[in-house]
Amino acid sequence: MLIEDFFLKSLGKWNSMRSGHSLAFKEFEEIVSQIKITSLEKWDIRVLEMLNHRKITNKSFSTPVIIEWESESNWEDSKADNISSGSSILIPFTSTTKTGKILRSTGYAENIKAYTEYNILENDTVIFITRYNQTIAEERIWFISSNVRCRASLIKSINTSAILQTSYASEIRIS
Amino acid sequence: MLIEDFFLKSLGKWNSMRSGHSLAFKEFEEIVSQIKITSLEKWDIRVLEMLNHRKITNKSFSTPVIIEWESESNWEDSKADNISSGSSILIPFTSTTKTGKILRSTGYAENIKAYTEYNILENDTVIFITRYNQTIAEERIWFISSNVRCRASLIKSINTSAILQTSYASEIRIS
Repeated sequence: MLIEDFFLKSLGKWNSMRSGHSLAFKEFEEIVSQIKITSLEKWDIRVLEMLNHRKITNKSFSTPVIIEWESESNWEDSKADNISSGSSILIPFTSTTKTGKILRSTGYAENIKAYTEYNILENDTVIFITRYNQTIAEERIWFISSNVRCRASLIKSINTSAILQTSYASEIRIS
Repeated sequence: MLIEDFFLKSLGKWNSMRSGHSLAFKEFEEIVSQIKITSLEKWDIRVLEMLNHRKITNKSFSTPVIIEWESESNWEDSKADNISSGSSILIPFTSTTKTGKILRSTGYAENIKAYTEYNILENDTVIFITRYNQTIAEERIWFISSNVRCRASLIKSINTSAILQTSYASEIRIS
């Protein structure tokens, strides 16, 4: 499996059940989301703007995607505080067959533009590692059928290497 | 990493936070457990009985372990119904450096004696696949530090291949 195949398999609308584990406090968080993953043209204005902004002239990237989500968590007392939504554009640059970098418009752990390194394992699990200012996020995604994918992630502190949170999502394609 | 190394790294007491996702009903389950993993002598009476019972004369297995757990779930209304405990003995038989079979005294998805096939990936993730009468359980375990391990599992129906449940545990060593 190449990164193009991975994104191709991921296109569509997904219902996601995600559990967060705060290890230090033994606290569970439950998040239900709808996620929509769509491919973008290479000359989409949002893609070109991202490349311009980073002064990237290398045009040998694979098909970009936009991930849009709407989430509801059980974390805060007030329902309104638990609803969030957002989107992120991903542009994949291949280094070798199984490794490369992804330029993302919005980071996951910290809301900044970030580079993600990816690595595809022999069993088609895709590992994403993103370095932010304070934290490192590691995400591993694998398909258990063509319509169900799993996503396990962890966020750790760069300074102390302490693991701040792990989380796990089961995602089912709805269209 | 060999299977012996994996079990050696797993010895000790662990606090586990586990989330179960029932995909069809979008229901979350939260389970808090204490898990104790101890190595056994190859000539431990419980190990010998398991081998005798299955008429296994092949003595070229690695160090067996016993896993003991006490769990509390939030699933049932009554607290008493949510508390469970148990133990399972695992005897690993190596086939190649990275693959083999594990004889277990109690299955995970169905409470019967079972054989588990294991496979160790290039990034040291260990995959266990167990076939029961009605279901197949796939478990993948990886260490994110020497004191934190993650465990993602799924149970699917043999007849329909439908995915019945996925679950994810974050486990922290406490001694």
